[in-house]
Amino acid sequence: MINQIYDVIVVGAGHAGCEAAAAAANLGSSTLLITMNMETIGKMSCNPAMGGIAKGQIVREIDAMGGYSGIIADKSAIQFKMLNLSKGPAMWSPRTQNDRMLFAEEWRLALENTPNLDFFQDMVKQLIIEGNKVTGVITSLGIEIKGKSVILTNGTFLNGLIHVGDKQLGGGRMGEPKAYGITEQLVNLGFEAGRMKTGTPPRVDGRSLDYSKMEEQPGDPNPKKFSYLDTPILKKQRSCHIVYTNETVHDILRSGFDRSPMFNGTIQSIGPRYCPSIEDKINRFAERNRHQLFIEPEGWKTIEIYVNGFSSSLPEEIQIQAMRHIPGFENVKVFRPGYAIEYDYFPPTQLKHTLETKLIENLYFAGQINGTTGYEEAAGQGLIAGINAHNKVRGKDEFILSRDEAYIGVLIDDLITKGTEEPYRMFTSRAEYRLLLRQDNADIRLTEMSYKMGLAKEDRMRKVEEKIKQSQELEDFLKETSLKPKEINPLLETINSSPVDQAYRASQILTRPNMSLEKLEKLDKIKEKSSVYSDEVREQAEINIKYRGYIEKEKENVAKLQRLENIKIPDDFDFGKISSLSAEAKQKLNKVKPKTIAQAGRISGVSPADINVLLIFLGR
Amino acid sequence: MINQIYDVIVVGAGHAGCEAAAAAANLGSSTLLITMNMETIGKMSCNPAMGGIAKGQIVREIDAMGGYSGIIADKSAIQFKMLNLSKGPAMWSPRTQNDRMLFAEEWRLALENTPNLDFFQDMVKQLIIEGNKVTGVITSLGIEIKGKSVILTNGTFLNGLIHVGDKQLGGGRMGEPKAYGITEQLVNLGFEAGRMKTGTPPRVDGRSLDYSKMEEQPGDPNPKKFSYLDTPILKKQRSCHIVYTNETVHDILRSGFDRSPMFNGTIQSIGPRYCPSIEDKINRFAERNRHQLFIEPEGWKTIEIYVNGFSSSLPEEIQIQAMRHIPGFENVKVFRPGYAIEYDYFPPTQLKHTLETKLIENLYFAGQINGTTGYEEAAGQGLIAGINAHNKVRGKDEFILSRDEAYIGVLIDDLITKGTEEPYRMFTSRAEYRLLLRQDNADIRLTEMSYKMGLAKEDRMRKVEEKIKQSQELEDFLKETSLKPKEINPLLETINSSPVDQAYRASQILTRPNMSLEKLEKLDKIKEKSSVYSDEVREQAEINIKYRGYIEKEKENVAKLQRLENIKIPDDFDFGKISSLSAEAKQKLNKVKPKTIAQAGRISGVSPADINVLLIFLGR
Repeated sequence: MINQIYDVIVVGAGHAGCEAAAAAANLGSSTLLITMNMETIGKMSCNPAMGGIAKGQIVREIDAMGGYSGIIADKSAIQFKMLNLSKGPAMWSPRTQNDRMLFAEEWRLALENTPNLDFFQDMVKQLIIEGNKVTGVITSLGIEIKGKSVILTNGTFLNGLIHVGDKQLGGGRMGEPKAYGITEQLVNLGFEAGRMKTGTPPRVDGRSLDYSKMEEQPGDPNPKKFSYLDTPILKKQRSCHIVYTNETVHDILRSGFDRSPMFNGTIQSIGPRYCPSIEDKINRFAERNRHQLFIEPEGWKTIEIYVNGFSSSLPEEIQIQAMRHIPGFENVKVFRPGYAIEYDYFPPTQLKHTLETKLIENLYFAGQINGTTGYEEAAGQGLIAGINAHNKVRGKDEFILSRDEAYIGVLIDDLITKGTEEPYRMFTSRAEYRLLLRQDNADIRLTEMSYKMGLAKEDRMRKVEEKIKQSQELEDFLKETSLKPKEINPLLETINSSPVDQAYRASQILTRPNMSLEKLEKLDKIKEKSSVYSDEVREQAEINIKYRGYIEKEKENVAKLQRLENIKIPDDFDFGKISSLSAEAKQKLNKVKPKTIAQAGRISGVSPADINVLLIFLGR
Repeated sequence: MINQIYDVIVVGAGHAGCEAAAAAANLGSSTLLITMNMETIGKMSCNPAMGGIAKGQIVREIDAMGGYSGIIADKSAIQFKMLNLSKGPAMWSPRTQNDRMLFAEEWRLALENTPNLDFFQDMVKQLIIEGNKVTGVITSLGIEIKGKSVILTNGTFLNGLIHVGDKQLGGGRMGEPKAYGITEQLVNLGFEAGRMKTGTPPRVDGRSLDYSKMEEQPGDPNPKKFSYLDTPILKKQRSCHIVYTNETVHDILRSGFDRSPMFNGTIQSIGPRYCPSIEDKINRFAERNRHQLFIEPEGWKTIEIYVNGFSSSLPEEIQIQAMRHIPGFENVKVFRPGYAIEYDYFPPTQLKHTLETKLIENLYFAGQINGTTGYEEAAGQGLIAGINAHNKVRGKDEFILSRDEAYIGVLIDDLITKGTEEPYRMFTSRAEYRLLLRQDNADIRLTEMSYKMGLAKEDRMRKVEEKIKQSQELEDFLKETSLKPKEINPLLETINSSPVDQAYRASQILTRPNMSLEKLEKLDKIKEKSSVYSDEVREQAEINIKYRGYIEKEKENVAKLQRLENIKIPDDFDFGKISSLSAEAKQKLNKVKPKTIAQAGRISGVSPADINVLLIFLGR
């Protein structure tokens, strides 16, 4: 009926599914994107924002490789903010607030304009498995669609169960049906499945709020953007607002705890630690008399408002009563209540680094199905799954980002090596080489490898080449330019930096604390040359010079560990036969099946002693 | 919890619900619109078009009264066509093709900008009834919301059951959950409920079609629009295409008939006669070797295409195989299959002219729940229900449009008097005074009464006053202007009309066949004056002059029948006690409870003899 055999079938059209489909199709795979509802493609299920700390870096990485998330976020942005600018460049994190409707519209149009990509609206309820290989899917209408590989990105839909107080409703999102069938089949095939929980706050009527009682949070005065390509820069922006809960709010919320599915045992599964419900925050941090809320508009024109920080599955009347005691919320009208949702996930230790399952060949998982939380984490996995499904079908090499190359590499290595018992969210602290994994250099880190693979296109590659060339020029200029005391001392004085008594290179001066390229440009001699370069190029050169010491050190550490990454462990290696390994190590190693000694070392329960045993056994 | 007692609660946010909510709120009622999903407000469930024959007139009527459908349709239009221009002005029918996403977006923004209107996302599963009055609703989350009146506009959602071949899925639309609870409650309260069926065709990938094998259907070269207000006129348009099925297509479709829920007894309920499925057309018109399909784009940019005329609930593989034999569809890729849907409706004879139910006070029904089909029919009912719910709550008069005032009047009078056994669709032939009910004069017919009620606003009223004044001026000018034979004969010759031998008024010349104001304007004497008027004014004056005879006659007929409309029948009149009425008449009259003798005469089964008996009994 659909007689084409697709190279790649992607199930689900959220952030993971959309990136997976785009990547596979752009690489040349005939790709089918199946969604339960073609009008919910690219929907933001939770807050109307992209990026943020560590997550913004992921969006930049996706963009650098030719994924769409950065472009879509830019096109639908209503506000841009670079977070953590007061810290070092490793911490700078871009974030957009987005127009929810526009975001979905742009995703759909981008996918519609992607060659090799087909669409189909139906629910996948079964996989077709031949031997230990997946060969297609069967939909709720009984339609069989053949595919050489299948990527599951089911989000919160697999047996989704929505909780509001003591009410439960089946559904993948409020107002949308759940999906079923796949978990049951996979468990029968030997997969381990679990339940996770997440939640979302109420959406309210912006007309009913008094913003004069809140603190305005405008976007950056000179907004930047996610994509390295020429997406538009915001000319106007819409503000968010900050406001705080108080003891009265907490008391009212507490009055509903006995009917909270979180506390009365109805919900057993674990929710996202760093995005907890408001009742969870009150419960866990009983000593805190207020919690910050971030009031986000849902788009350019809509009056709908997202109450970030007030996620709740308490009975709706409690949610509303409590909100009415938040400053500015005295007359709040609620459009949609907050709710919790439980859904099936598959512990990601069952996956390879390519996101292919170990049990069933050509079957890939990406996004919340792997126990993660966050649009960006989902999108990053989708991209990698899409690339690898394509590569596998075409007999090409696996594409794996290492921990020193990308946050996406850290994310996937963490997932498949350590697994996760709770929704996994990215943080800069999860990356051991975060000074290398900056938002400013994602293109320098990743575009070339994506270009060579055929995903990043010519224009993108030329752009990064030009950026590298120009920033090197500027670096060279700064290293070669000598500044005499009489030239530089007046400037040093203005920043309370001790004067020099001999000539120094501009690059040496730049490494001083409080000194910046912008300040150096007060000298005409510098400005004359540097002002011809773009902000991006100047930033790149400046970071390379100012942080060179740290960066070099981090690179040395990478090289050291690389030695262990280079020691491969055969695919079918049986750890059980090495009697000198601890029992726990044997069990964990056989479960995770690490591909390198370094990966083995990252498994919790595998000790340095076990690693030494392995090294000896492998002949080192 | 929601402690406000609303004047009007509207359940459902399709065409009926949106117009109902807008009308009640604009009149000043505190109004709540409840929808299962705030992201599906104003969704076009079926084809991406508004208006058409008789339906376009309804959209103009809604607009004339201050409803939103015309404005939204204009703002989201991708093509405009005035249908039936070759026929008389009573038949002229405006139609737009629309961008599906934009249409929903514009509806939502229009409603968000309507004062007095609140929103809530949840499913209503129960009405709160006190005595024989409705006083609120209870949602699936168990939330009680109080309202002085409730308007149900549940569309196809009440116990919706989707059929594709032998597969059945619960749902209100594909990919959306059904609603339940209300039917069961209403039946317990004594309501009669039934099932109806409707269907929708497949949506396909426009990239897979070969348009060179189809006939292009562009929009009008000088597109007009629906709204009498200053909505934008299309500067560019997107074309539709026409193509035909053939015997091969029919043969393939027939091969699936044994698995068709329409033919194998699975679907018992009756579908829309004038919008039948393709299998129904083949079955009922077996002698026809082709059926026309209308290929409609779903928006400005999307590649999704709506295959109008190919509605089907045959197994999906049959739908696709058959389509592949339509010229240009050889390589068609399907996004979503066609399907049939069965849903609950309530025979509309249970309603008053205000759309209030006879059984439960302050409870109103509008749209498909009353057994109608079509966006425009739904929207028209929504408007009337919204107005009357407001008026009732405020103790104001009922608002009823008569059959000589509006298609909406015909629609509602037909529904509540005759009922309907199949989805009711408007046609010009249903209106006995269709020469009065034109698309060009909906504002003249309706704006003033809506303005007096407070719904149509000042700017709208001023516009129609100006139109009336100016067209009267132009009419007067044409009636007063004398044309000598030497002035007019050359023009008459060009249209093969016999020459005159004495002076005639321009208005007299205009009544000749083939003569038009545009042609008369070839005379400078006419053009000088008439060209200062807008197209609308010139059209109005021309119609008034050319068709005056017919219009006068129609008005006389109205006056005659008005006599019978004026003979009221008391609300609690017991027809059973008039022994000389036929048994059938007694039964039907007691069921419908007509309010006037004229309405009694429109009930099928009530004979002229019965009417005479009634007239005598009522003392005439």
